[in-house]
Amino acid sequence: MISNIQNLFSDQANRMKRSAIRECLKLTQQPDIISFAGGLPSKTSFPYDDIKKLAVSVIEEDGPAALQYSTTEGDNGLREQLLKRYQREGLTHITTDNIVITTASQQSLDLLGKIFINPGDKIICGLPSYLGGISAFAVYGPELVGIKFDEHGMRADILEEKLKVLSEAGEKPKFIYVIPDFQNPAGITMPEFRRKEIIDLAHKYEVLIVEDSPYREVRFEGQAPAMMHALDKTGQVITLGTFSKIFCPGFRIGWIVADQSILEKFVQAKQTADLCTSSYLQKIAAKYLETGLFEKNLTGIIQEYKQKKNHMIKNFETYMPEGVRWTNPEGGLFLFLYLPEHLDAGKIFFNAIEKKVAFVQGDVFHCDGSGKNTLRINFSFVDKETNTEGVKRLAEAIKESL
Amino acid sequence: MISNIQNLFSDQANRMKRSAIRECLKLTQQPDIISFAGGLPSKTSFPYDDIKKLAVSVIEEDGPAALQYSTTEGDNGLREQLLKRYQREGLTHITTDNIVITTASQQSLDLLGKIFINPGDKIICGLPSYLGGISAFAVYGPELVGIKFDEHGMRADILEEKLKVLSEAGEKPKFIYVIPDFQNPAGITMPEFRRKEIIDLAHKYEVLIVEDSPYREVRFEGQAPAMMHALDKTGQVITLGTFSKIFCPGFRIGWIVADQSILEKFVQAKQTADLCTSSYLQKIAAKYLETGLFEKNLTGIIQEYKQKKNHMIKNFETYMPEGVRWTNPEGGLFLFLYLPEHLDAGKIFFNAIEKKVAFVQGDVFHCDGSGKNTLRINFSFVDKETNTEGVKRLAEAIKESL
Repeated sequence: MISNIQNLFSDQANRMKRSAIRECLKLTQQPDIISFAGGLPSKTSFPYDDIKKLAVSVIEEDGPAALQYSTTEGDNGLREQLLKRYQREGLTHITTDNIVITTASQQSLDLLGKIFINPGDKIICGLPSYLGGISAFAVYGPELVGIKFDEHGMRADILEEKLKVLSEAGEKPKFIYVIPDFQNPAGITMPEFRRKEIIDLAHKYEVLIVEDSPYREVRFEGQAPAMMHALDKTGQVITLGTFSKIFCPGFRIGWIVADQSILEKFVQAKQTADLCTSSYLQKIAAKYLETGLFEKNLTGIIQEYKQKKNHMIKNFETYMPEGVRWTNPEGGLFLFLYLPEHLDAGKIFFNAIEKKVAFVQGDVFHCDGSGKNTLRINFSFVDKETNTEGVKRLAEAIKESL
Repeated sequence: MISNIQNLFSDQANRMKRSAIRECLKLTQQPDIISFAGGLPSKTSFPYDDIKKLAVSVIEEDGPAALQYSTTEGDNGLREQLLKRYQREGLTHITTDNIVITTASQQSLDLLGKIFINPGDKIICGLPSYLGGISAFAVYGPELVGIKFDEHGMRADILEEKLKVLSEAGEKPKFIYVIPDFQNPAGITMPEFRRKEIIDLAHKYEVLIVEDSPYREVRFEGQAPAMMHALDKTGQVITLGTFSKIFCPGFRIGWIVADQSILEKFVQAKQTADLCTSSYLQKIAAKYLETGLFEKNLTGIIQEYKQKKNHMIKNFETYMPEGVRWTNPEGGLFLFLYLPEHLDAGKIFFNAIEKKVAFVQGDVFHCDGSGKNTLRINFSFVDKETNTEGVKRLAEAIKESL
């Protein structure tokens, strides 16, 4: 074997580290840990019988095409089903040519990084922002510019300030990365006025927006603001979707909706990344949408997660010590817990693990290292009884650090 | 929309172009074209009934785990099945920790490029070499060093010469890329003595070897030389495997077998690339191996492709004009056609398409632009009758250029 294999690794490789979340997930495999850490859907949310039926009928009806290579762009039937859904969301200006199927959203994030980022390029993201996005981009060596949040998400005033300073320095960020609906990790939804403010800034400074939208359809209550893609319509917004939270993550199917000038390059990147996404699973998913089974199951997921979220909020109110605050999301899978400023969630983590409860410390979602007093909490995965026991343990761990 | 979106693209993106092979595959979707172009398995090779059964039983037996996220490393059951097969191949020094599941071999190739290649790094490959490998590496900006072939594959004498020159210049290539069994596109299998020569050089100059092995199990006749991974045993060989040609490409499942010092970085790269490969399909594949259905079907694939290859060779002997030569592979999916030196397969391509027969021009497999008088021919996809008609048309197109 070669001595010092480390010396052979590329700059990209040297920027990689094992994901804190993925390592956390390993803890969830210990059966006695109550995990609020991962972003796992509930096992009761999966449509087992539907999948069994469709997995057979797809082979019977589509035969060879279900097992052969797909085109890189993806299964036409699936793209048409997705188009219909997006047209109902007000994306009336797009066609199936604006949709490319990916091997779930993580691939979309990676390929966006690949086609846009040179080392040193500026990428704008929220403080906090989804770790999987940050990590995918980080491989390509960008400088992440974090924008603070208020209760409406990314602050437009700070964004404008940063864009102005960059512009005066002759720099143009490659894109602004946002998760407008039930943001991961904060659980905040951007109201329409804030979306418009950000789009206006993107137009003014000619910057792309990446609208990562994995949870939008899991809305428990309230009115959905328009998608940023629908508010823009000039092709400046790139939207990412996925079935991972609204069908099942084990299928690894996502998609990207974008202007064709971007998709052309994106398809080239996907050709070398994995040629195409599973034709078999794409065809099952297409049929799942086409037959209306998707909508039926989604209604069940929304009901289940709504109850779980309400249950967790009630448990927080009962067990959390004074000084701890939390967001109360209108949908999605996560909420964010704020400890008193002087506390460090990283230290509480180890005590919590001893008490057999897990979460993700919030600072990993902050590209500037802030957020040490925050915790990301998932409420979709465990059942209600386990949730109560987990919140008790977590509250105990926090109390001991006060 | 942003003006001049092209200016936003990264260096990686600027190195990408649409794959000639993928674009060729679009031609095969015209129903009246006889395609020897793609690398598609025969539709009669897919185990439709087995998949229908297993797709149901996996849900019944594994339930939630089949639809949830997998670990990035992959399904343990599948890794154990693969380990057993590799142990029979003489890889007695490895464990499941040396195997990571990927979203088919194209992902393995891309991630190898990602973790090893900085712009300007040297990568050694064959003249010719698999285009999907070359394209995946090219994104990261390496300088490809092509090594000429003889009837035994990559020439060890030229390889040594190049390694020596590079070493004297203080340069170490990141790896040597080889496809030892039924090489794509040349159809040549490296005998054991040549494998050993190349491994000895890799040891002497401390260079990794990437052994891309998608066809090894599709052997029609003759004795298989030992795998390069088995001949090395020091961890200096990285082996890539895939189910695409021996089960079905629609599953997008491959794997990488490597030393843990390499796999650790590889897993980090996969975490940001797509988190994990489909758990559902991994579990179906594991059961397919475990129950012995895989072996049974593989025997059928080998029989079918052997007959198809023999049929094609017979057709060549009957219809090809004098001066045209071809390789006669002992397995795999491809053979290579050599025209008289002065002919250009790129020009014949358009005449062939007019006659409704497609192939891939050989120069795209040569990183130095040579090989203009060569054609890659696939014999697995079309049935025998179509094959005869296709060879007649191809022979006609070649004759017209003489």
